[in-house]
Amino acid sequence: MTVQEAADRGDVFVPHGFDEQTVDLGEVRMNYATAGEESSPALLLIPGQSESWWGYEAAMPLLAEHFRVYAVDLRGQGRSTWTPGRYTIDNFGNDLVRFIDLAIGRETLVSGLSSGGVLSAWLSAYAKPGQVRAAVWEDPPLFACQTTPAIGPGIRQAIGPVFEAWNTWLGDQWKVGDWDGLMRAMPTALPPEILRAMASMIPPPDPDAYPPAGQNLREYDPEWGRAFTSGAATASCDHVTMLRQVRVPVLFTHHFRTVDEQTGRLIGASTDQQARRVRDLVAEAGQRIDYRSFPEVPHSMHEHAPKLYVEAVLDFVATLDQETP
Amino acid sequence: MTVQEAADRGDVFVPHGFDEQTVDLGEVRMNYATAGEESSPALLLIPGQSESWWGYEAAMPLLAEHFRVYAVDLRGQGRSTWTPGRYTIDNFGNDLVRFIDLAIGRETLVSGLSSGGVLSAWLSAYAKPGQVRAAVWEDPPLFACQTTPAIGPGIRQAIGPVFEAWNTWLGDQWKVGDWDGLMRAMPTALPPEILRAMASMIPPPDPDAYPPAGQNLREYDPEWGRAFTSGAATASCDHVTMLRQVRVPVLFTHHFRTVDEQTGRLIGASTDQQARRVRDLVAEAGQRIDYRSFPEVPHSMHEHAPKLYVEAVLDFVATLDQETP
Amino acid sequence: MTVQEAADRGDVFVPHGFDEQTVDLGEVRMNYATAGEESSPALLLIPGQSESWWGYEAAMPLLAEHFRVYAVDLRGQGRSTWTPGRYTIDNFGNDLVRFIDLAIGRETLVSGLSSGGVLSAWLSAYAKPGQVRAAVWEDPPLFACQTTPAIGPGIRQAIGPVFEAWNTWLGDQWKVGDWDGLMRAMPTALPPEILRAMASMIPPPDPDAYPPAGQNLREYDPEWGRAFTSGAATASCDHVTMLRQVRVPVLFTHHFRTVDEQTGRLIGASTDQQARRVRDLVAEAGQRIDYRSFPEVPHSMHEHAPKLYVEAVLDFVATLDQETP
Amino acid sequence: MTVQEAADRGDVFVPHGFDEQTVDLGEVRMNYATAGEESSPALLLIPGQSESWWGYEAAMPLLAEHFRVYAVDLRGQGRSTWTPGRYTIDNFGNDLVRFIDLAIGRETLVSGLSSGGVLSAWLSAYAKPGQVRAAVWEDPPLFACQTTPAIGPGIRQAIGPVFEAWNTWLGDQWKVGDWDGLMRAMPTALPPEILRAMASMIPPPDPDAYPPAGQNLREYDPEWGRAFTSGAATASCDHVTMLRQVRVPVLFTHHFRTVDEQTGRLIGASTDQQARRVRDLVAEAGQRIDYRSFPEVPHSMHEHAPKLYVEAVLDFVATLDQETP
Repeated sequence: MTVQEAADRGDVFVPHGFDEQTVDLGEVRMNYATAGEESSPALLLIPGQSESWWGYEAAMPLLAEHFRVYAVDLRGQGRSTWTPGRYTIDNFGNDLVRFIDLAIGRETLVSGLSSGGVLSAWLSAYAKPGQVRAAVWEDPPLFACQTTPAIGPGIRQAIGPVFEAWNTWLGDQWKVGDWDGLMRAMPTALPPEILRAMASMIPPPDPDAYPPAGQNLREYDPEWGRAFTSGAATASCDHVTMLRQVRVPVLFTHHFRTVDEQTGRLIGASTDQQARRVRDLVAEAGQRIDYRSFPEVPHSMHEHAPKLYVEAVLDFVATLDQETP
Repeated sequence: MTVQEAADRGDVFVPHGFDEQTVDLGEVRMNYATAGEESSPALLLIPGQSESWWGYEAAMPLLAEHFRVYAVDLRGQGRSTWTPGRYTIDNFGNDLVRFIDLAIGRETLVSGLSSGGVLSAWLSAYAKPGQVRAAVWEDPPLFACQTTPAIGPGIRQAIGPVFEAWNTWLGDQWKVGDWDGLMRAMPTALPPEILRAMASMIPPPDPDAYPPAGQNLREYDPEWGRAFTSGAATASCDHVTMLRQVRVPVLFTHHFRTVDEQTGRLIGASTDQQARRVRDLVAEAGQRIDYRSFPEVPHSMHEHAPKLYVEAVLDFVATLDQETP
Repeated sequence: MTVQEAADRGDVFVPHGFDEQTVDLGEVRMNYATAGEESSPALLLIPGQSESWWGYEAAMPLLAEHFRVYAVDLRGQGRSTWTPGRYTIDNFGNDLVRFIDLAIGRETLVSGLSSGGVLSAWLSAYAKPGQVRAAVWEDPPLFACQTTPAIGPGIRQAIGPVFEAWNTWLGDQWKVGDWDGLMRAMPTALPPEILRAMASMIPPPDPDAYPPAGQNLREYDPEWGRAFTSGAATASCDHVTMLRQVRVPVLFTHHFRTVDEQTGRLIGASTDQQARRVRDLVAEAGQRIDYRSFPEVPHSMHEHAPKLYVEAVLDFVATLDQETP
Repeated sequence: MTVQEAADRGDVFVPHGFDEQTVDLGEVRMNYATAGEESSPALLLIPGQSESWWGYEAAMPLLAEHFRVYAVDLRGQGRSTWTPGRYTIDNFGNDLVRFIDLAIGRETLVSGLSSGGVLSAWLSAYAKPGQVRAAVWEDPPLFACQTTPAIGPGIRQAIGPVFEAWNTWLGDQWKVGDWDGLMRAMPTALPPEILRAMASMIPPPDPDAYPPAGQNLREYDPEWGRAFTSGAATASCDHVTMLRQVRVPVLFTHHFRTVDEQTGRLIGASTDQQARRVRDLVAEAGQRIDYRSFPEVPHSMHEHAPKLYVEAVLDFVATLDQETP
């Protein structure tokens, strides 16, 4: 049974601790959850690839004390519309521009993880004037999610083989849906250095976990992954060009990363060299960028260390308030 | 001297009969001209490739009697920002979404020629809810501007070689700027069937013409053309997918077209077969599409037959008013 | 179980009526079968996509009366080496150049079906001097197997969706191997006009058939299909360029073909317009091309009408003998 | 005036100290020069991008004491055929396979520089059995000439911008031919770190030099460069796959290289990390690879240090003779 078939039967999704609603953005109906007082400053949370909004479930109660939080499912994630053939950074980004207009309606802080961190960077450069107050880039694969980046490893030298495996055995829109085949294939289909990293970093699935293991992938259109490994998602949005146009203050958190000596594979979101280049380019754009290295923290700080994530966000916001006249 | 160099010296542009202004859309500052009463219904005019807003200069006084007209320069055209590496249909389209929000501020009729007609189709499908009242697609190269369309000739079998010649001798951002070389090369660089069509359809340049011959190209970033011939501009926006999501009533005007028997080259914007497929797909989407064939009219009706163009628009609008409750 | 796993267990292949042997070409070990007297003129037979050499099994006894026949498995077919990432027309073609050198060792007549017919055209243009006496192109998808051909439908508008379905559910190198999923998906994954054509043209599988239904696909690396639909296989080998360099006399047989009126889909190997263009280009190259239309004959004449195929080949060869001084 | 126009007038080429001749390979007429005794061991010399056979002019007399030397112009170089649309590593390589058959006619040592070094690697893996005795890879951009390599910088992060500048101002087949524009554009069109490297490494042009400055580019089809920067040349020939199939002993010389700290730009042919990976892969293939680092030697050792180059070749050959039974 494919997820589409499952979805038709209504049993793909699981309940969560925050209410969900949708907004019509034109092409896409975007699903999102909110928390916090309407009168608090707005905060847009953008999940990473294969995450849904509820990846922020642990962090949201902490954030809700300070912000009106909007956690979204991007197109192809969770309960938002799946759009075959149309997964690009520019389309994801312009969905968020519309979301800020239609669902938030005022200037907002934006924070995104991984691909969502790249989208936070995209909004920092390309949002409509007045939409973004400042941006948090949580371990974004800047350069490293492009196929032919200006500097350092691209997606083939990083996470690419994992996305390809997901796409091969699950299929665009889960049309193949061979979960068991995916599980069987991983040990041989993935490069050894990735398998070693996964073994050391990812806890074995807990059969009692909630949401259940794999729930995130069940809600995810595997065409996303193919769009990134083929370059379709990142074409026409070079990161050098984008970073040179950043218009708002930025907090850039950089988590666990290492480069496999023999194969050159990046385990992590970006190299130190790439991170330095990011800082240079934003500085050349005349914007402040606070760089914080968390080499012990896994890719998703907001999920695995929600307190630390919230503190980092609040520390950053505090400095913004000071500098605002 | 390149156009960039000329622009630095301020002598690229020529005066026009309508005032121009710009609006900051985020990534792009968009140049536009207006005409007509503020209280009249809004009409957005979208020029074609290598045209600037003033391609509508003859039609605007006629339109201004009925509409508040907004004629724009797209990114890479006229006085709007040039954005190397970022010319895609989705980016052009989302610029217009922002323009409608920020410069028009209410529901609008949209009308575009050629690539602008494809953008009018894009807005028909993908604009924000409530932005577009109805759409005029003036001789749009639906399918025929894609590299690998679902039906009929793609850009290689149509206008592609012309765009390639412009790009080769002028260069991205006019960095080569070899106008004389372009003129010399045309007779051998272009396929004979295109040269025959140009000879029969395009009047010889008038040395007293205003704006002067070539003025449109001088204001145009030739990277546009390369983006279309390489497919970068049209990737991730397949026309079947787009047409199946049209949400508003459409007027589709189809002008002079023929297919060269020997080479299969399309001279014109789309074939009759492509036009039928367009109508089927919009009809399947549950939308009304009025198809009008003008086989004697050149590609730009609004320039070469402005009265006919305005009548066609007004006839279409009249039927909309009747059908609205 | 995947075919690779099956192959490891030795049960992919079935016995045939001609002995097989292999020759080391460098990158590839090529499997082939022979028939006929060593002293007869040489004839190289090149199967089509998803066919193996034994697609010629019915024709070979007839041909063997006149020729020394060499029927090959191309890379990625049958028992020849599978070469992931390296399926291109130029690589297939240069394998055959080496095969003629190493296994045939003298001037040969070449005849290929479908993709094999394109390779027969490739050899007509690009083989080493003296290797090819003349060429039979059996229903070759000239232009129609390219992604962006100079004229007429490309692969997206032709057989492409079938190759994509094979690749999706079987996977490169059969690594997904979901045959049942493929069978279930066909009725919805393929466009209706292809399903109608298949229903009318392809007899239902005979459970007693020998070789069994699907045997050809079991021996085939589905990466082939992806290489064609992505354009990787046909990049850097434009057919206009190739046809303008044909150096030998050609017999071009053109079989059943039709174009679906509504969708423009080509059912068949090439359109009449494409076939005319082929003839023009070969004639411009100064070579004789005999065009024979067999609108009632299915794609593989050599399999479904072997006598007719052999007669056509012999008629062509007879004229060659006459004209040679 | 373009080079094509110049070539039509016969004044592109200059005389050299060795006789030239051509051989018909099928698609290409290959130009080459020979030196040394017919009875000496054969040595095939493969020039790099934008070099012609006479880049070996200084080394050839030294080599001729030990070898029968064949120095070739590849397709698109020197006096060999230009083949628009068909510059791929596999096509270059198969030309050499044919050349060895038709012009050399026996087992040969092969040695190539830069792109020619990649072709020497290609022959090490993919030549016909028995053609190649052993191979010298002179500073080959393994991985670094691919667009999306498995490890380390690709062509965008290396020499790519230089090739792009050549192609932009000279044009495919020199059809733009704007040499002065190229010279004017270099200081702004190229990244500063490349300009710095060029300034420090390349001596100012000597007006009395023979051959004259730029002679190599005048003989070169700038479509080569575009084929590499676009990836057309290197598609379907991944270096991991190729290196895993090396079948002969190898000498790999690695010359001056450095990585610009800020931009990550590789100045040189490959990084140390890439070179290590090359050695690992060839060793995994069960072949001997002698790695010699010459960090002070410029890219073309055979031109700038011909004695050192010849000694390195002879030292390598001596060990081969010892190990052969």
